[in-house]
Amino acid sequence: MSKEVKPVSVSLHPLGGGAAVTSEREAVCVFGTGDMGRSLGQRLLQTGYKVVYGSRRPLGCGPLPHGAQAMSYAAAAQLAGVVFVCIQREHYSFMETLSSQLDGKVLVDVSNNPEKNLYPEANAAYLQRLLPGCHVVKAFNTLSAWALQNGPSDACRQVYVCGNSAEAKRAVAEVATKMGLTVLDRGSLSAAQELEDSPLQLFPDWRLPLQIAVGLTAFFFFYELIRDVIYAYVVQGKDISFRIMVSLANKVCPIVSLIMLSLCYLPGIIAAFLQIYRGTKYRRFPDWLDRWMLCRKQLGLLALAFAFLHVLYTLLIPMRYYVRFKSWEYIITLIKENQTVKFDTTVGWRSDSYLSVGILGFGLYVLLGITSLPSVSNALSWREFSYVQSKLGYLTLFLCTLHTYLYGWDRFLRPSTYKWYTPPGYLLSMVVPSVVLALKLLLLLPCVDRTVTRIRRGWERTEPGEEKTFLL
Amino acid sequence: MSKEVKPVSVSLHPLGGGAAVTSEREAVCVFGTGDMGRSLGQRLLQTGYKVVYGSRRPLGCGPLPHGAQAMSYAAAAQLAGVVFVCIQREHYSFMETLSSQLDGKVLVDVSNNPEKNLYPEANAAYLQRLLPGCHVVKAFNTLSAWALQNGPSDACRQVYVCGNSAEAKRAVAEVATKMGLTVLDRGSLSAAQELEDSPLQLFPDWRLPLQIAVGLTAFFFFYELIRDVIYAYVVQGKDISFRIMVSLANKVCPIVSLIMLSLCYLPGIIAAFLQIYRGTKYRRFPDWLDRWMLCRKQLGLLALAFAFLHVLYTLLIPMRYYVRFKSWEYIITLIKENQTVKFDTTVGWRSDSYLSVGILGFGLYVLLGITSLPSVSNALSWREFSYVQSKLGYLTLFLCTLHTYLYGWDRFLRPSTYKWYTPPGYLLSMVVPSVVLALKLLLLLPCVDRTVTRIRRGWERTEPGEEKTFLL
Amino acid sequence: MSKEVKPVSVSLHPLGGGAAVTSEREAVCVFGTGDMGRSLGQRLLQTGYKVVYGSRRPLGCGPLPHGAQAMSYAAAAQLAGVVFVCIQREHYSFMETLSSQLDGKVLVDVSNNPEKNLYPEANAAYLQRLLPGCHVVKAFNTLSAWALQNGPSDACRQVYVCGNSAEAKRAVAEVATKMGLTVLDRGSLSAAQELEDSPLQLFPDWRLPLQIAVGLTAFFFFYELIRDVIYAYVVQGKDISFRIMVSLANKVCPIVSLIMLSLCYLPGIIAAFLQIYRGTKYRRFPDWLDRWMLCRKQLGLLALAFAFLHVLYTLLIPMRYYVRFKSWEYIITLIKENQTVKFDTTVGWRSDSYLSVGILGFGLYVLLGITSLPSVSNALSWREFSYVQSKLGYLTLFLCTLHTYLYGWDRFLRPSTYKWYTPPGYLLSMVVPSVVLALKLLLLLPCVDRTVTRIRRGWERTEPGEEKTFLL
Repeated sequence: MSKEVKPVSVSLHPLGGGAAVTSEREAVCVFGTGDMGRSLGQRLLQTGYKVVYGSRRPLGCGPLPHGAQAMSYAAAAQLAGVVFVCIQREHYSFMETLSSQLDGKVLVDVSNNPEKNLYPEANAAYLQRLLPGCHVVKAFNTLSAWALQNGPSDACRQVYVCGNSAEAKRAVAEVATKMGLTVLDRGSLSAAQELEDSPLQLFPDWRLPLQIAVGLTAFFFFYELIRDVIYAYVVQGKDISFRIMVSLANKVCPIVSLIMLSLCYLPGIIAAFLQIYRGTKYRRFPDWLDRWMLCRKQLGLLALAFAFLHVLYTLLIPMRYYVRFKSWEYIITLIKENQTVKFDTTVGWRSDSYLSVGILGFGLYVLLGITSLPSVSNALSWREFSYVQSKLGYLTLFLCTLHTYLYGWDRFLRPSTYKWYTPPGYLLSMVVPSVVLALKLLLLLPCVDRTVTRIRRGWERTEPGEEKTFLL
Repeated sequence: MSKEVKPVSVSLHPLGGGAAVTSEREAVCVFGTGDMGRSLGQRLLQTGYKVVYGSRRPLGCGPLPHGAQAMSYAAAAQLAGVVFVCIQREHYSFMETLSSQLDGKVLVDVSNNPEKNLYPEANAAYLQRLLPGCHVVKAFNTLSAWALQNGPSDACRQVYVCGNSAEAKRAVAEVATKMGLTVLDRGSLSAAQELEDSPLQLFPDWRLPLQIAVGLTAFFFFYELIRDVIYAYVVQGKDISFRIMVSLANKVCPIVSLIMLSLCYLPGIIAAFLQIYRGTKYRRFPDWLDRWMLCRKQLGLLALAFAFLHVLYTLLIPMRYYVRFKSWEYIITLIKENQTVKFDTTVGWRSDSYLSVGILGFGLYVLLGITSLPSVSNALSWREFSYVQSKLGYLTLFLCTLHTYLYGWDRFLRPSTYKWYTPPGYLLSMVVPSVVLALKLLLLLPCVDRTVTRIRRGWERTEPGEEKTFLL
Repeated sequence: MSKEVKPVSVSLHPLGGGAAVTSEREAVCVFGTGDMGRSLGQRLLQTGYKVVYGSRRPLGCGPLPHGAQAMSYAAAAQLAGVVFVCIQREHYSFMETLSSQLDGKVLVDVSNNPEKNLYPEANAAYLQRLLPGCHVVKAFNTLSAWALQNGPSDACRQVYVCGNSAEAKRAVAEVATKMGLTVLDRGSLSAAQELEDSPLQLFPDWRLPLQIAVGLTAFFFFYELIRDVIYAYVVQGKDISFRIMVSLANKVCPIVSLIMLSLCYLPGIIAAFLQIYRGTKYRRFPDWLDRWMLCRKQLGLLALAFAFLHVLYTLLIPMRYYVRFKSWEYIITLIKENQTVKFDTTVGWRSDSYLSVGILGFGLYVLLGITSLPSVSNALSWREFSYVQSKLGYLTLFLCTLHTYLYGWDRFLRPSTYKWYTPPGYLLSMVVPSVVLALKLLLLLPCVDRTVTRIRRGWERTEPGEEKTFLL
């Protein structure tokens, strides 16, 4: 970029930032009077700028923010060094006619597309190609008109900026900083495509955990369907298909929840063993492990959702017609056969322990979920967050696994459990958590723990002269 | 405002904002050593300002923030260009005696009143009238002393500023920006009344939704009271008034919840049909529709609260004395009449489906509620938020309506349901959601959907030459 | 500090803050290429700085953020006025060899220790002692590498800065402000110890409330254990130890919850009576009262956690083997003795009222918990927050106390309740809430309320000439 940004844009300065405060406000130009144009203009006015709108019909462009002026595109462009282009990409071409007035100006492309890959090149790159004499900066497209009007809140505070001219970016950054936003430079205009795709993304971090959840749910649903409903139909000739709605759902939910919870803690354990094996924390983990570790929060929240459904399904068991029917049938049989009931203390202990441990586990589970809320986790110090997510997390996993063991009790000894030679789902669900807990116990042994702690503080087993041993 | 702001205030500059950094800190004056004065002074000191307090008794004004000085009002005023007035309005008059020392200074009025409409004119306007030679700026009144001391968090980060002198506002904005706050200019001092009223508002957005909730609750409570309790008393001579506490509450809660959930989605559907009818998105909606659309979040959260109560009321049904009594009675009757029970698979399916669909609906309901938390919704991209609130929202509405249909099953065919010729409440509650779902299905038809999408992207049926067709 | 900070650091300026914008980016130096070094460098690059890394092996230091350069420590130090030291404290000593290159520079110590009290002096103080010619500033240590990379969110936005040179702090503040962070000056380098301890703190605000919760839980657990299990074993010779898991837990949880909820409101009442007695709001409360008032939120959240467990324990009562057994036994006895059951309307009213009031109380409890979430409470105006936490809080306390009264009903009249002459736990739990509610009623009497309101608005009974009467 050899051309100089015109002085008009250079003299923009933040509130009182200059050596001398002039009483005249700087002018900024906004092309287009749609939602985005009006919101942006209103915010710029509140920030203290003078705003001129460029419009095809300056007199008939509808209600503008109080204090703004509307004029022709050419006239508006001449009054300001920074021009916000709030026009749809399909109509950019008309700006070619303004190339002399826009020459040397900073053009801010704030546009988004309704879908990804609609055009071969980014909107901002297209605008730069149309007007090679301008300094196009892509910015503000990740903020909504709504957020601009209502004052940016936390996550909407960041403005990503990219462009080929450092000075133009600086001029845009000035305006954004004055508006109370935080500017992040993303480099040259070639990053525009990425910035334009970002508001269109749909839960990219949740994709893998959701796939795992759907996969596990489908597998265990069909597994239990075959063992329960189809087995009963084929072997015993009974139609118990109605059990799909609650009994089966309430078998699948806790199984998936427990497996996914243990999948949150497994990568950390793998990483620790890898670090022990390698004797350093400075070698990168394999990609699959990195990706796994990055989606632990999502895995945990999905596990919590399944646990929540499990709790609801369990609590309404006494309300089910089937359960009430079984209870009536049982009592009638007892009375007809003139039997009496006798209380079995062992069953009492087992039933109550199983329920109580489950409740405590779920309570901690909910606590983990609450500390995952952005506003709560932000309020925690790093040590507090890691204490909750690690110490309390392992306690949750332990309680939930214990709950499953107590549920199983001695059922696994009964041959009738292994219908068609398959183990029941709850037994399968206990494999991963038991392994995770056993390995974690191993890591807690003093000698192993000491090594891991030293490695995590930067110590390396080999090559002690390596620089990285003393870096933060 | 013809007078110039005195140089002292002009030379204030943000951290390193000037061309040359002087090692001397700028002084700011604070009148008053109460909670607000002390918090403000402490924060100013932390930000790097020199703080002098003006006090009637400089020696006996109690503990001040470390590093601040206290002196007489007149002496303090002379050391700084910006004076924060942290004194109650009733005592402003004494400042008239300082008019010569304060002349040309920037006076920041941070006061609030304990109630609305206590005085005919805004505190800041009154201060300006008392001291016409000063530049009064209303600011900081929406921040609490607590927030100032503990560092402003997200929502408390915005400082609304108004005043007649642009330079004075700029000087105040400098100080606020340096304190890490975002400044929003609200215009001239005539906006002070509005700024002073804002901390006194009490859930203005919740008023309409709460009125709807109370109205619906009252209506359905008395409707069901008449149909249940009074009908039983008058027609059958039975006193079942105890059913008010749980049975009636558990009828009213789901009815109100379902109606309010559907009221969240009705305005969006009305708006879509209005846009199709008008062939443009650029004409304003009628006021009542705008207001309705703005309170959808509150409607939804209240609906969730009623759903939550419904879940709790439902889950404790098996614990009720009445329910246990009925069960005992039923079994005793069965045994006395020597009957046996027979399992009805249809009833099993119906009972389980109804419960299971309700659970899934409630699970999604809770998910919608969680994504409404400010910190969560801020972390979502626009597309993600609209996906959750629209797609998952309609799925929730569908599941909850289906839950009600399954609950009703064929009961609506029994004549005994229509006590005193009135339909049961749950039938009434299904009208609006069924209409909303039917209209939504209509909007999802490809031909209708295409038109709406085109209109929402700016296309207009008539007058294709209109400028607005290509605005963002 | 007599030495001048070298010009290089002085000429750093925020985005566009200077009178003239130069097209060359300022350079900042980062010592160390570990996690913290790389995250900091990446963020500095995004903010628009030129970043040079100082490294022992400039060619072999692994992947650096795109756009950064690596060179020897000495070379890197000479290019920038501000040097971020991202090296572990144990290795600081090597920097003594660079003292000539670093002389007069601003050294930013960002380090943290793995534990408290590991070293006799703060890391930053040690660095200053090693390099007396530098201006050491402690900063950024409360931010995690992760937060720096992903953009700071709300609570992580604050940078605490301390150091002996005001100019050096100003230079660091410039960089931090440009990075979108809010700077809080904590004074001279003697505050470094405190800053270094802060990321290591573990829920300091929760310590006292947790101790109270654990103490109350332990006391009531053993109290009920003795009255229930041990009494039954000793006096009646029955082993009902299985009741520990659910029955006992479900007695302890509501007792602790109710007492802790009332402990949230007791200090406010004590404070009001103290203010009435003293006739002023300007005298400090005793320390114990201040500390108590500061942990009310934590007390309330722990009370909510116990209430949540109580709800879960209660809802699963019908699923317990013991409860189902008792129900079978009861019916069989009824039938054998040829008795009939008769519905008792009073018991119906009592059972349903008790459950219904409990549900409403818990619903409000949850609402209080939700408004305690940082992002929700930030979105409320001060008046809204105090309305919810005070008005709705007292309503919650009233409903929960009423729930306990209804639970008790006339049981306290039966002599069999007082096993071993001890009152049941629920009676003990009602003492504090009843006192709190009675005192609150007293405070609501018009004459008392008027006095308190006047005092809280600054009025004082004695010495009306006192200055503080008119302070904000």
